[in-house]
Amino acid sequence: MVDTSQKIRVAINGYGNLGRAVELAVNNSDDMELVAIFTRRDPESLDTQFAPAVSIDEAPDYVDQVDVCVLCGGSATDLVEQGPEFVKLFNTVDSYDNHSKIPEYFASIDRAAKASGHVGVISAGWDPGLFSLNRLIGEAVLPNGSTTTFWGPGVSQGHSQAVRNIEGVVDAVQYTIPIEETKERIRSGEKLELTARDKHRRQCFVVAEDGADQDRIREEIVTMPGYFADYDTTVEFISIEELKRDHGGIPHGGDVIRVGETSEGTTQAYSFNLALDSNPEFTGAVATAAARAAYRMYMTGVRGAASVFDIPPAYYSPKPADQLRRELL
Amino acid sequence: MVDTSQKIRVAINGYGNLGRAVELAVNNSDDMELVAIFTRRDPESLDTQFAPAVSIDEAPDYVDQVDVCVLCGGSATDLVEQGPEFVKLFNTVDSYDNHSKIPEYFASIDRAAKASGHVGVISAGWDPGLFSLNRLIGEAVLPNGSTTTFWGPGVSQGHSQAVRNIEGVVDAVQYTIPIEETKERIRSGEKLELTARDKHRRQCFVVAEDGADQDRIREEIVTMPGYFADYDTTVEFISIEELKRDHGGIPHGGDVIRVGETSEGTTQAYSFNLALDSNPEFTGAVATAAARAAYRMYMTGVRGAASVFDIPPAYYSPKPADQLRRELL
Repeated sequence: MVDTSQKIRVAINGYGNLGRAVELAVNNSDDMELVAIFTRRDPESLDTQFAPAVSIDEAPDYVDQVDVCVLCGGSATDLVEQGPEFVKLFNTVDSYDNHSKIPEYFASIDRAAKASGHVGVISAGWDPGLFSLNRLIGEAVLPNGSTTTFWGPGVSQGHSQAVRNIEGVVDAVQYTIPIEETKERIRSGEKLELTARDKHRRQCFVVAEDGADQDRIREEIVTMPGYFADYDTTVEFISIEELKRDHGGIPHGGDVIRVGETSEGTTQAYSFNLALDSNPEFTGAVATAAARAAYRMYMTGVRGAASVFDIPPAYYSPKPADQLRRELL
Repeated sequence: MVDTSQKIRVAINGYGNLGRAVELAVNNSDDMELVAIFTRRDPESLDTQFAPAVSIDEAPDYVDQVDVCVLCGGSATDLVEQGPEFVKLFNTVDSYDNHSKIPEYFASIDRAAKASGHVGVISAGWDPGLFSLNRLIGEAVLPNGSTTTFWGPGVSQGHSQAVRNIEGVVDAVQYTIPIEETKERIRSGEKLELTARDKHRRQCFVVAEDGADQDRIREEIVTMPGYFADYDTTVEFISIEELKRDHGGIPHGGDVIRVGETSEGTTQAYSFNLALDSNPEFTGAVATAAARAAYRMYMTGVRGAASVFDIPPAYYSPKPADQLRRELL
């Protein structure tokens, strides 16, 4: 039994897009209260909404006031360092998203969490996160089949930056767009050998310098190896005003599709889709639900690293188990 | 740590569509072996494929040979009786689907399972089951929003039977069809007050007796209260040969759509869809993955009733946790 009579006391580490999203999500959760937002910057310089900004150096002073800390740094450099350090102090949740290094990261959190007696939930976002959960369940239920993940429509920061790096480009936004026709063919049971080009196309909105050679920029984009050469890519030149007005959001999303046969010729299609106006706000919402779960796992005696694969789903919800069964089962 | 070196020994109780589906699914699972299929009928009369049919009266003789028993009887009369009886003998899984009586059924399984020291997983199918799981997670991640469940395209046995009961009808099949336009409007963030008619339409294929008054039959169908009057319903008269040839399958599926805002005007849409060639085969596949999970929960010390809300997702998969993280997280 989980005690739901006391509010879960939450801290945030890092106040970028994700930190601000978690701040919103905790504020939207009646069973949680936000205690502090830790930052490496001057706390005075932060315009936080629902809790005071506090220097990251003071985090150890908060061990008795915080039930779970949501780590909102980047995966490349912040989390690999901060994850093991923070889980020594608190139960933690993060959205570590460097897929190829997850086993290594999990092990480092697991060691530190077990040594300090905490729970550290890693990779709680949408991919990794909810997409991973659907890859697992789809495969477990339909073992004779195959899983395809599509991303988008959404902004890819890495691809946008690659375009911005081209000479003569002032600014750019790149959208990754899944090929709907391919999704439909997969769902209908066709067994396809898919290339990168079959799954996604790429759409670039580019602001060029006055007098820049647009044909040369376009050619550099569509032939760029690793980023664009293997895809059908469209390039549209627009003004800086149009870019700011029409392409300032951070939408994203995608699909996990599992198609399998339960007997010869009997096709079963399992699809999960997200269509997100704001990638960081949704990631923050998942991390916040996972923070609730991390604390509950801790209260039931779990210690060490965990992921969405280990979390009993009821722990994500503020509702008691009997209410969940009555309303949602 | 779950020991995956020994095969999970499975029994089935009941050998209708669902029992046969579980038989297929267990046979498709390398980590499971099928020990026996219990039946109320004469075991000699059953044409089982992968394990001997055994009289249900002999089930108590199998307590040392079976790790988990999948209960494949109907919810209305079989499970309410057999569920509490069988969980005294074995860990069990069922697909109990009488939504309004789930709390009562859960309590009866919980009592018997705790008294005998077993795990009883209830309502492990797709609705209740995977749809419930998505209703829970969607709501937990997006608390400011609303959830809509659509069913179909698929055959409704209850509605088909209602048509068959009309005078002059030889046979009939009724498809429940979700309104795609409504799904799209919901996903795009429109806040709709939906009537039954907005969500689904109904399509009937009817074989009439020679000389029967088709207009009267059509009228009786489309005006039938509770079943058809609140929907747009189409009725097509076909021959018995066409019915058998084109409408002999048991397809089904549907959608769980959660749409919420993470901040003012920022819409996030979460969608889960199943498109199933065979409703019972998919339900059996879910129940079989849940049987693996039930046994693992038992091995880690859990006792009592449980549902998909309580199962750590990794338990559904035969793969060890580190492999799951490496391949699917």
